[in-house]
Amino acid sequence: MGEVERDIDDLPKNPANYTALTPLGFLERAALVHPTRKSIIHGSVSYTWQQTYHRCRRLASALTNRSVTFGNTVAVIAPNIPAMYEAHFGVPMSGAVLNAVNIRLNAQTIAFLLGHSRSAVIMVDQEFFILAEEALKILAEKNKGNFTPPLLVVIADENCDSKALQYALGRGAIEYEKFLETGELNFAWKPPQDEWHSIALGYTSGTTASPKGVVLHHRGAYLMALSNAIVWGMQEGAVYLWTLPMFHCNGWCFAWTLAALCGTSICLRQVTAKGVYSAIADLNVTHFCAAPVVLNAIVNAPKSETILPLPRVVHVMTAGAAPPPSLLFAMSQQGFRVAHTYGLSETYGPSTICAWKPEWNSLPPETQARMNSRQGVRYVALEGLDVVDTQTMAPVPADGTTVGEIVFRGNAVMKGYLKNPKANEESFAGGWFHSGDLGVKHPDGYIEVKDRSKDIIISGGENISSVEVENILYQHPAIFEVSVVARPDEQWGESPCAFVTLKPGVDTSDKKLIEEDIKKFSRSKMPAYWVPKSVVFGPLPKTATGKIQKHILRAKAKELGPVKKSRL
Amino acid sequence: MGEVERDIDDLPKNPANYTALTPLGFLERAALVHPTRKSIIHGSVSYTWQQTYHRCRRLASALTNRSVTFGNTVAVIAPNIPAMYEAHFGVPMSGAVLNAVNIRLNAQTIAFLLGHSRSAVIMVDQEFFILAEEALKILAEKNKGNFTPPLLVVIADENCDSKALQYALGRGAIEYEKFLETGELNFAWKPPQDEWHSIALGYTSGTTASPKGVVLHHRGAYLMALSNAIVWGMQEGAVYLWTLPMFHCNGWCFAWTLAALCGTSICLRQVTAKGVYSAIADLNVTHFCAAPVVLNAIVNAPKSETILPLPRVVHVMTAGAAPPPSLLFAMSQQGFRVAHTYGLSETYGPSTICAWKPEWNSLPPETQARMNSRQGVRYVALEGLDVVDTQTMAPVPADGTTVGEIVFRGNAVMKGYLKNPKANEESFAGGWFHSGDLGVKHPDGYIEVKDRSKDIIISGGENISSVEVENILYQHPAIFEVSVVARPDEQWGESPCAFVTLKPGVDTSDKKLIEEDIKKFSRSKMPAYWVPKSVVFGPLPKTATGKIQKHILRAKAKELGPVKKSRL
Repeated sequence: MGEVERDIDDLPKNPANYTALTPLGFLERAALVHPTRKSIIHGSVSYTWQQTYHRCRRLASALTNRSVTFGNTVAVIAPNIPAMYEAHFGVPMSGAVLNAVNIRLNAQTIAFLLGHSRSAVIMVDQEFFILAEEALKILAEKNKGNFTPPLLVVIADENCDSKALQYALGRGAIEYEKFLETGELNFAWKPPQDEWHSIALGYTSGTTASPKGVVLHHRGAYLMALSNAIVWGMQEGAVYLWTLPMFHCNGWCFAWTLAALCGTSICLRQVTAKGVYSAIADLNVTHFCAAPVVLNAIVNAPKSETILPLPRVVHVMTAGAAPPPSLLFAMSQQGFRVAHTYGLSETYGPSTICAWKPEWNSLPPETQARMNSRQGVRYVALEGLDVVDTQTMAPVPADGTTVGEIVFRGNAVMKGYLKNPKANEESFAGGWFHSGDLGVKHPDGYIEVKDRSKDIIISGGENISSVEVENILYQHPAIFEVSVVARPDEQWGESPCAFVTLKPGVDTSDKKLIEEDIKKFSRSKMPAYWVPKSVVFGPLPKTATGKIQKHILRAKAKELGPVKKSRL
Repeated sequence: MGEVERDIDDLPKNPANYTALTPLGFLERAALVHPTRKSIIHGSVSYTWQQTYHRCRRLASALTNRSVTFGNTVAVIAPNIPAMYEAHFGVPMSGAVLNAVNIRLNAQTIAFLLGHSRSAVIMVDQEFFILAEEALKILAEKNKGNFTPPLLVVIADENCDSKALQYALGRGAIEYEKFLETGELNFAWKPPQDEWHSIALGYTSGTTASPKGVVLHHRGAYLMALSNAIVWGMQEGAVYLWTLPMFHCNGWCFAWTLAALCGTSICLRQVTAKGVYSAIADLNVTHFCAAPVVLNAIVNAPKSETILPLPRVVHVMTAGAAPPPSLLFAMSQQGFRVAHTYGLSETYGPSTICAWKPEWNSLPPETQARMNSRQGVRYVALEGLDVVDTQTMAPVPADGTTVGEIVFRGNAVMKGYLKNPKANEESFAGGWFHSGDLGVKHPDGYIEVKDRSKDIIISGGENISSVEVENILYQHPAIFEVSVVARPDEQWGESPCAFVTLKPGVDTSDKKLIEEDIKKFSRSKMPAYWVPKSVVFGPLPKTATGKIQKHILRAKAKELGPVKKSRL
């Protein structure tokens, strides 16, 4: 037997039969196969795949000329513009790691990020130059005498006020196009020697402690790029609208997926319902990704901004805060085909999908939406997904009710957090990545997020899922957006507090009346102890990616003071 | 810099973030996501994905119970039936390597294969039991006194004569369903510890020397399974007709692709045009793969066997002998969408595709067919493809005329040949896999096969591509199939000799007249020295996969003796 084993497996890797996986090769292939097809359209600016390949090689070359190399980090602070797309290839083609920075962070946080990642170069959109400068100032003060200012590259955008650009140039920044010109068109870019090498670094929003730096590798980026296309049925030549920020988990790896599919990216500097509909009408968009907040804006857009019925099926992938079934229903009524996914920065973005089952086709649309609001099953590139008891780590029964922690395992899980051994130890404990999200497993094996562990409301010893309360409240005709958090409660320890924004056109002259109506509606639809004892009106604080910032609302609820005892 | 490098890359693999790539996980996922969807349909027998998963686990378990383990080989001698599909998962789930044997080989060759692979178990379809028994007899005689007979598992098929089954059972073989029952439904199957571990072994047809054993690994099978779907735009739930034998390069990895897509496999024991059309009409087939010979049968089928116009677009992938443009044209006229691919057993089946370009849409259909008859560009999972000078290995210019050898590099290239260091050294020389095929690179980067190096005809010192002569001859209205080889020639060394079969209905009363017409047609379409000096009528010898066996024709041409000097 021993000899047979040796025979059949002792065939070593060699340069002809082994290549480190990397999504960078997709770009080279796209430029070969479809050199003249549009790769990116941004207003009046557009590029072909051949041009994009040349520009990315120039970028890699220009960075290399500035001594950027393997192990360095290049930060990009920009919205969804061509340079941001190019950075997803050009930066790793130099051997460096891409750090795409959330443009809605404040200077203080950006200073932390730039310091923590030790970014050697900062590419910054002209609109955000002053923000970057402020961040660097903070960073310089913090590291007095021991601070080498990074190279500043400012990205001009003809859609923006030229004053910001002039200011940046006056401050010594080099303009992006000029920077590209310092690089070689046919630069011999560097594929990774090891597919485990890092390709990107992204920081979690850090609601409690300092942001954590999530490190992703070439292997995972390659596999997730393909897996996106497989699970979503996204075909060669797809036209993809960039509503989801590329700085958010590298746009869920779609920057790389588009190259694998030789598809076309449509940039969108400002995401509005009107902008989305226009791109669908004018630029043949077939696919886009968006947080539920964007979908909400789309379904609630004034008729004049829509182009219904849609000229073709438009595929939408949504994830993030669990989208309420009512929202999924409204989207499908408008002709969008919504794929509901779920994941975290630590899993390269979405890595589960609520795969549609043929047997759902005969269900009422509301039931379909409810089935589809679950987080589903693992992506093809994710090897393990389970819901486990938080104490024993044993899988919970697939009964749809027993709550446990959602855990991930496989090639779609990050390399780890940068310089944070404690967080790595905790998050990888027991051979699984711990999401911190609580959920159930249904009898059909689909998982459903019930809440972030810290978003669970414990009232009189009973767990209340804030998500479930929200899902019901979303059915109320006056509610536009709602977020439910725990408020201290004299009698019950905690009780649900609903923060609400109302739909345009709702008569807001008597808020008390609306509040009562919401409570009455709640009592008719949910257990008594779930009913929000407090309803607060006003805009909801959101992250850059449109997630409602529950930690801010929790703080507000705390400020309100405890709910007094009552005879409710 | 050193410290930064360490930080950003020193995040080790751990059980949560690294899993060996294997297509076996696709099956587990399909059973979870679509447990009740049909996985396989074979006449009146059909299974769901859950059943297929259970059956494959039973098979792995039953094999394990018989001491089959890592490093062993299990041979399967069967046409496209469910057991063959199951073997693609059940065998590697036991840790063993699948050796799918070409059912059209003779006992002598099969004896060589079974001995070379040291197959511990043979699963054999009842129709081929006697063939297997003969092969084992030859093998036993060759290894007198040092031969342990493998376990024989006979696969019953209700579509076959039961006598063969009875005979096999009488000879001590265990029936496949009985064998499955000895295994556990919920067997804890063994994913590979290392993705470089072997998953399959397949023998080349070996036209000159002994067949060579091509060893494939889990990593490559995983990547090619996904790449098939990506390049072909094959979506979740596709319905795939098994015209291509699974014993041929593991059905070009489509056994695994179907599991990744949770699609449905339609078995076809005997491939006929009628069978193909029936499956399209009755079983909603969306995709199938076939050698040109099968396409030829389809386009030339009598009207009564067709179901034109097709009820839906049917996607066809073809490879193997370069399909003549006239054939591609005829297929597209019938409504088939033909993806033309190219590859070898050593590259997991097809690993290049003639990716369709939008700009071809406006070309005349004949020109489209000619563009599409080229072998194209690399698959997503193949990292390198080039045409190089056979001496210097320098890439040839992309001029469409300079002939060189087609070479491959990347994850879609085999591990190597089993127990054949000399062949490995030669085939991997210079960091590329050498295909032995000659071709050109067009200005658009697409490659085109001109010939196998041994199929080139050298006449008066000039190279003649037998494929190009064939492509022209296929335009002759009377020719059904044609193969052109070199015949010794007194004056020119070699000259083209065409072996021809004629279309049904052609008046064959005067063969001499037809021959003259073919030559006249040739003179009007090609250089004089390309014109076949000899035309031979009669059936063409073919391999199991429908490839015309040029080596047999070359031998026949030699037997004809040299063409005499003439004043042509």
